[in-house]
Amino acid sequence: MAAPAVSVLITGANRGLGLEMVKQMAEASRPLRKLFACCRDPDGPRAEALQTLAKKHPNVITVIRLDATDLCSIKQCAAQVGSVVGKGGLNLLINNAGVLAKATLQEATSEDMQNSFNTNVMGPMNIIKEFLPHLRAAVKASGTPGMSSSKAAVVNISSILASMETVKQLYGFFPAVSYRISKAGLNMLTRCAAEELKKDEILFSLLHPGWVRTDMGGEEGEIDAPESVQGMLSVMASLTEKQNGAFLDYKGNSLPW
Amino acid sequence: MAAPAVSVLITGANRGLGLEMVKQMAEASRPLRKLFACCRDPDGPRAEALQTLAKKHPNVITVIRLDATDLCSIKQCAAQVGSVVGKGGLNLLINNAGVLAKATLQEATSEDMQNSFNTNVMGPMNIIKEFLPHLRAAVKASGTPGMSSSKAAVVNISSILASMETVKQLYGFFPAVSYRISKAGLNMLTRCAAEELKKDEILFSLLHPGWVRTDMGGEEGEIDAPESVQGMLSVMASLTEKQNGAFLDYKGNSLPW
Repeated sequence: MAAPAVSVLITGANRGLGLEMVKQMAEASRPLRKLFACCRDPDGPRAEALQTLAKKHPNVITVIRLDATDLCSIKQCAAQVGSVVGKGGLNLLINNAGVLAKATLQEATSEDMQNSFNTNVMGPMNIIKEFLPHLRAAVKASGTPGMSSSKAAVVNISSILASMETVKQLYGFFPAVSYRISKAGLNMLTRCAAEELKKDEILFSLLHPGWVRTDMGGEEGEIDAPESVQGMLSVMASLTEKQNGAFLDYKGNSLPW
Repeated sequence: MAAPAVSVLITGANRGLGLEMVKQMAEASRPLRKLFACCRDPDGPRAEALQTLAKKHPNVITVIRLDATDLCSIKQCAAQVGSVVGKGGLNLLINNAGVLAKATLQEATSEDMQNSFNTNVMGPMNIIKEFLPHLRAAVKASGTPGMSSSKAAVVNISSILASMETVKQLYGFFPAVSYRISKAGLNMLTRCAAEELKKDEILFSLLHPGWVRTDMGGEEGEIDAPESVQGMLSVMASLTEKQNGAFLDYKGNSLPW
C-alpha cells in the first residue's frame, strides 16, 4: 500500500531554509496532498522565487499570507487551510519563520528582545493554537496508532544557540542574546506542547538546521541550504513518539539542552 | 581581618521570599553596609511589613520604588543607589521579583505570555544593564582576585520549572507555560551574561528556591520561606567563579537544564 498523501504547512517559506523546504518537498517522491507555503508578503518582491515555484506545482503548492506576529493573519490562514483540507486535516506544521539579531547583552535593545519574542515564541505559540483543530482532524482521519509526521506533527525550527550547555563554547563567537533567549523559550514551549498534547497523539519536535549559508546564517556558514533541508526532511520523516519533545540537529543527533 | 561590609539590592522585597531575604540579611551576622529593598509600591498596603522591618534597621535598609516592567523606575532606582554607594559600588544584586500564571498552553493568553516575559526576562535584563556601573565600581573597589558575592555578583531567582529536562516529570502537575518559558529565557539571559561579563569579574548565578509556601508557591509547598532563604543565602555566600553561570537549588545542588 502506498504511503498516504500528507498536507504540510511551512512558515517563512519565501526564502532561505523555508523556500528550500518547499522546493524539495514539492519535487520529492513522498506523496504530498497539499503544501501551504506561508510568508508575510506573498505579493512582494521577496516572494518572487516562491511564486515561481508555486506556478510549477499549481496542484500542490498554495501560497498564503501569514505574519507570525499578527494573530489576525494566523486566524485567516488557519481558516483558509481548513477550507482546503477539511476532515483530512493538516499533518505537518513547520514553524520555520524567525528573526535574528546578533547583538550582545550590552548592545541588545528592548526592541530586539520584543521582536525576537514576538516572532520566535508568540508566533509559533499562536500558530500551534490556531492550527490545533486541523492537526486533531488529521489524527482522526489517520486511524493509525502512534505518532508520526505523516499523521500529525509540529516541527519547530530552533537552533544550537538555544542550548544552555553550549553557551560557554559558542557565546564569544556568536552572542545573539535576544535570539538565544527567544529560541530557549521556543524549546520550552515545544517541551510543554509535547507533554500537553501527547494524549491527542500530536508529535512535537525541535530541529537545529545546522549553520547554514542563508541570509540569516551569513556567508561563513558550514553547509548550504539544500544539505540542511535534505537532512531535516529525512529526520522529519523518521519521527516517532520516541522523538516527541526531542531537540535534534539536521543529521538526527540529539542536542543538549 | 573582618569580612568587608557589602551592599545588596533585592527586587520584589515586599513579600514572600524577597521579604524573608531582607529580614534574614538585616538580622544576620554577615556585615551589611546597605540593603536596598525594592518593590513596586513602597507606600501601598502590600509593603507594610517591609516598611516595619526597615524602621527596625534604619541605618541598613533603604526601601526604594522599582517596577521591573518600567525602565524609567529602574533608572531612577539605579541613580538613587549610585548616590548612596558611590565608589564602593553594589556587591550583590538579587533579581527576585517575578510573576507566575499557572495556565496550560491551551489556556495561556497572550497577556500571560507578555506579562511573564516583561517581568521575568526584560526586567532582570534592564536591571542588570542599569546597575552594571555599580557592579563594576564594586569590582574596582574590592581589589581582590576571583569572583564572589561579596565582590560583585548577580543572582537571578529562577525555578526548576525552567528546566527542559524535568518537563516530562512535572508538567502534568504544574503546567505554567508562560512562567516556564520566561524562566527558561531568564536562564539563557544569565548564561549569556556570565560569559559576556566574566572578564569584568562579575559573577552570575541562577537559584531555584525550592517549592515554597508563599503567595506564589501556594499552600501545598514543601518548605517554608525561612528554610528556603536560609539555604539560598548560604549558597550565595559560597559562590565562586566555579559557579559562574550555574543553576543551583537552595541546597546548592546543580540542576539540569
